[in-house]
Amino acid sequence: MKKLTIVKIGGEILDDKSKLAVFLKDFSSIPGLKILVHGGGKMASSLSKELGVDTKLVDGRRLTDKDVLPITIMVYAGLINKTVVADLQSYNCDAVGLCGADAGLITTTKRKESPINYGYVGDCQPGSINVKRIIQLLNLGICPVFSAITMDDKGQLLNTNADTIASCLSVALAEYFKVSLLYCFEHSGVLRDLTDANSIIPELTSGRVEALKESRIIKTGMLPKIENALHAALNGVQEIRIKDFKSLLIVDSGTLISSKSY
Amino acid sequence: MKKLTIVKIGGEILDDKSKLAVFLKDFSSIPGLKILVHGGGKMASSLSKELGVDTKLVDGRRLTDKDVLPITIMVYAGLINKTVVADLQSYNCDAVGLCGADAGLITTTKRKESPINYGYVGDCQPGSINVKRIIQLLNLGICPVFSAITMDDKGQLLNTNADTIASCLSVALAEYFKVSLLYCFEHSGVLRDLTDANSIIPELTSGRVEALKESRIIKTGMLPKIENALHAALNGVQEIRIKDFKSLLIVDSGTLISSKSY
Repeated sequence: MKKLTIVKIGGEILDDKSKLAVFLKDFSSIPGLKILVHGGGKMASSLSKELGVDTKLVDGRRLTDKDVLPITIMVYAGLINKTVVADLQSYNCDAVGLCGADAGLITTTKRKESPINYGYVGDCQPGSINVKRIIQLLNLGICPVFSAITMDDKGQLLNTNADTIASCLSVALAEYFKVSLLYCFEHSGVLRDLTDANSIIPELTSGRVEALKESRIIKTGMLPKIENALHAALNGVQEIRIKDFKSLLIVDSGTLISSKSY
Repeated sequence: MKKLTIVKIGGEILDDKSKLAVFLKDFSSIPGLKILVHGGGKMASSLSKELGVDTKLVDGRRLTDKDVLPITIMVYAGLINKTVVADLQSYNCDAVGLCGADAGLITTTKRKESPINYGYVGDCQPGSINVKRIIQLLNLGICPVFSAITMDDKGQLLNTNADTIASCLSVALAEYFKVSLLYCFEHSGVLRDLTDANSIIPELTSGRVEALKESRIIKTGMLPKIENALHAALNGVQEIRIKDFKSLLIVDSGTLISSKSY
């Protein structure tokens, strides 16, 4: 099986031009097949504010109502996506910017409105990923760059969690490739103590995640990312790491997420 | 040679949901290979206004300065492009939304700053079109949907005229396909008298364009479109028509632009 590297990059790096440049240059030099998935950053919130669109939060999560949806599409699938693609092209990486609607690559289901109505938010399902089309693009030597906008089966665009998209892509493609899924952010890995950059947990097994959750060492903010990573580990993805964006090219760095139960 | 239909759709149709739906449904049912190129519409101007970004015009043409460029990218390559793609997908047309940066499909040159500095505006050159990649996408059964955002060879995104992009794509692909280039707008064709929908000029040859320009029958607003169409006619594009978006599927409707000199 060929190797395929799937990298997710978070908003805090997208928001900082110099960090983004470092990351994209490194990403371009990853050999072989690769896919980039990017989040949103603060731009959608600041644009909403400028436009007088209220950001409504429930339990710290933003609602994507009918006024917020077009802003997320403009920022994520437009400005961020195309800027990243143009930068990658300038580093000789043959990137193509995509959202889930393009070629029906990622079809999601609008989240149920009860108990909380998150608005135009899509959830990945088994079968969400159009694997055949993605493999065709990869075989052309193209590097797909996904924003976290997807579509339901009726053509409704939906805002979707980028960590989840990276996880779902990895699982769907693990049948055809030896997939490395790398979640890149601003810490060296999953830390025992957020104030100590040296407190990296080198390996997180599904069993240990439960224990760490109970002891509250894993904080709420990290949980969804770890759960997406674990989902990939439990569904055939060869290697999953949560790591520092500056160490993208350093093999074996960060926290390895594994499917072991102990 | 296989037939390839390249359709350009203007802003006034993009601005009207019901007109756009009629057009996209018809576009979806065009048999064979096809490409859609779309303009911008009023949304970029209204968003600029809401954000307090001044729209600067010179001779009626908008300047794309550093504040306007991100707005055009968000609106053209983001919101309009992905909404059109999602709609086409819902009509079973396997669309992929692209800008010139994607896969380096359209590389332009930033327009010289003298005598007028139009800002971040790109001009197509011979060789701008990455023909090989576009043919690969068409061969996969994909329908490329282009916004009028392109890139220079250093990765700078540039705002570009959509009529010109449609013309350049047609010329570059005319070597490989029997190309029909259809400029769709709100009139039945090029009219002798804008107040009379029945005054269509059925055929415009390069010779007649000069005569009509002199007699001022062709108004300033139509001239760039006609010149782009003529460029295609003089460079091997099989059929070029300027026609009503509602008559997209009616063969031989509108004004035929031909390379004849008389």
